[in-house]
Amino acid sequence: MTSTLPEERSVPSASAVLEDYLALCKDACDGEIGRLYSPVKRGSGSLHDLILDYPRRGGKALRPALSIATCLGLGGHLEAILPTAATLELYHNAFLIHDDIEDESWSRRGRPTLHIDHGVPIAVNVGDAMLSLSLQPLLDNVERVGLGPALRILRAVSHMTRQTVEGQALELEWVRSNTWQLLDADYLEMVELKTSWYSFITPLQAGAVAAGAGPERLIPLESLGRHLGAAFQITDDLLNLRADPEEYGKEIGGDLWEGKRTLMLLHALRSAEPEDQARAVRILSKRRPGSEGELGLADLLDRLTVRGELSQAGRAEITAQLEGQRHSESKTLDDIRWLYALMQRVGSLEHAREVAGQHARKATDALAGLEWFPPSRHRDMLAGVVDYVHGRTR
Amino acid sequence: MTSTLPEERSVPSASAVLEDYLALCKDACDGEIGRLYSPVKRGSGSLHDLILDYPRRGGKALRPALSIATCLGLGGHLEAILPTAATLELYHNAFLIHDDIEDESWSRRGRPTLHIDHGVPIAVNVGDAMLSLSLQPLLDNVERVGLGPALRILRAVSHMTRQTVEGQALELEWVRSNTWQLLDADYLEMVELKTSWYSFITPLQAGAVAAGAGPERLIPLESLGRHLGAAFQITDDLLNLRADPEEYGKEIGGDLWEGKRTLMLLHALRSAEPEDQARAVRILSKRRPGSEGELGLADLLDRLTVRGELSQAGRAEITAQLEGQRHSESKTLDDIRWLYALMQRVGSLEHAREVAGQHARKATDALAGLEWFPPSRHRDMLAGVVDYVHGRTR
Repeated sequence: MTSTLPEERSVPSASAVLEDYLALCKDACDGEIGRLYSPVKRGSGSLHDLILDYPRRGGKALRPALSIATCLGLGGHLEAILPTAATLELYHNAFLIHDDIEDESWSRRGRPTLHIDHGVPIAVNVGDAMLSLSLQPLLDNVERVGLGPALRILRAVSHMTRQTVEGQALELEWVRSNTWQLLDADYLEMVELKTSWYSFITPLQAGAVAAGAGPERLIPLESLGRHLGAAFQITDDLLNLRADPEEYGKEIGGDLWEGKRTLMLLHALRSAEPEDQARAVRILSKRRPGSEGELGLADLLDRLTVRGELSQAGRAEITAQLEGQRHSESKTLDDIRWLYALMQRVGSLEHAREVAGQHARKATDALAGLEWFPPSRHRDMLAGVVDYVHGRTR
Repeated sequence: MTSTLPEERSVPSASAVLEDYLALCKDACDGEIGRLYSPVKRGSGSLHDLILDYPRRGGKALRPALSIATCLGLGGHLEAILPTAATLELYHNAFLIHDDIEDESWSRRGRPTLHIDHGVPIAVNVGDAMLSLSLQPLLDNVERVGLGPALRILRAVSHMTRQTVEGQALELEWVRSNTWQLLDADYLEMVELKTSWYSFITPLQAGAVAAGAGPERLIPLESLGRHLGAAFQITDDLLNLRADPEEYGKEIGGDLWEGKRTLMLLHALRSAEPEDQARAVRILSKRRPGSEGELGLADLLDRLTVRGELSQAGRAEITAQLEGQRHSESKTLDDIRWLYALMQRVGSLEHAREVAGQHARKATDALAGLEWFPPSRHRDMLAGVVDYVHGRTR
């Protein structure tokens, strides 16, 4: 999936209560994943270890925590939500592994990424394994929560994956086609698809369903999750521009190199003087340095030649692709610095912070409106997450 | 997943009836996939096209055909099995896309692989989309075949993915740890996990379940699928050694470069004189040329340096990994030729053909034993597949 999957590792210790709650949820969820994926055949133990690699590195397990808090807060049991929580965490970590390959990231949660440690083939394979295996916990739900709720959760997860994939496709397509005349509403629609469903809406809704809540409860939870997702993603995009990679776990400005359509970039393009606008669009049309496998293709050509395996047609094909790549210009560090300066000059960062703040306030209102969600430490945890997301926007 | 996913494109025109049946199933299945993944949002249409790219290139849709023939042959309706058939085909094509990335293949079904055409990020993403989206058709089954059979199919698919992943993990682990003292039984256990479940057993069983067959029908179908899978995979491994890549769609001898534990290689290692055995094990301990991203890491180092993004810790990490790779030796074309000559000398190819023939005969017997499966063109189609697999072994 594309690069800016929101990572919760940078959650500050805003509230010790929130931290404790998250830690408890993470323990429960990791235990469930370990139980589900204990190796059954001799020799396949290394897959088991690799599946647990990213979860064991930390990460706050925000998605499981949201689903657990909603379930327990509405009177459900931990066992009723744990398989679903494990599935959500597996999806998230599988996407992170593949994301790191796609973005050629070298660091995740303070350690080398899985594909740096074990090579691309194994990293692709481990992510696929996690995606493929995430169906079983949802089937375990039949015994845990009964047939009706289990099917509703399956449908919710299926809807979630569809939305996520559509959001990712939309974002990739904007970059590929160099589309830039987009409004805040376009960005927010993409983020709702790409981020809000899988990180917020579905965890909240699945928790409610596992607690036996009726369909009428799901609409206000969707609204809460939508605004949380928007505030979270915009802030994540802002952090991408300025954060310390050791701290934040990702490369600085990676979004600019990739040409991702953030709220800031779209605002800058709309607000800039015509000549600046033209220069920005020209920069965005350049490719990432070394991206799309220029060196990979040259390497492939050499290797196949060494092996004596390449047909004439195959050689012509690869050579033509290489030529095409060599003729396209790549972005420079000066290009990236200029884009950043432009965003600062026309107030795009302030604009993004303001929009994030609006959504954080709407999330606060949405939570306050859940008068059927009784006061408890579970509700406090949700409030803590809303406060944390709000706090990040300032 | 790992490299030798059996590809059905090399099915010969042994029987025009079989060909026609396969073509009808492919049309029905492609129609279902197209219906399921019609783009719902403006701008995400390119994802839709990429999902359909490999299916549109041809391929015989063997898995859908097996499930459709079993369902119709046991009195079920096409609509009852079509969503499941589409899911099986989506899994298969998703694995092919990721497989091609892992093996750095440049050609698939006579055209450049998806990652050569569109880059690794998009190819990883499209495969993930196909895996993620394959849940929905299985949920559509509730309306098509009723709750009970729908859940049984969901459980069957979940079991299938678990088996496949275990098999892939076992195979990767044998290569990684340079394990070579393995018996035919070890290889056959791995192939049953890696190939038989997802290509044969589950398609057959899902078809039966969709037709309302009871659990007692599933055991003989498992036996049929297991032997078909063994015969198919051994023959596929044999073809990998000698086939024309333009014809077969894969590179010659790729398995040897990767060090995959085929029946032939294991037989050769067991049968060789001690000094040849030692030489073979030494060759297998060498890495593939250019594999594990040696050039990828060097490129990454350069790029991050250009961007001014690399911390001291990050630079040290990547440099250390690069050093480790440079010091390990890589296989040469002479190594591969020597391994192939060894296998010929000690009769490993004949041995493999013999074992494949045994399993093909057992598959023939297993089909003949299904006396509750009435004669029909659907049963004829299954017989045609068994004959085809048997014919390939000779």
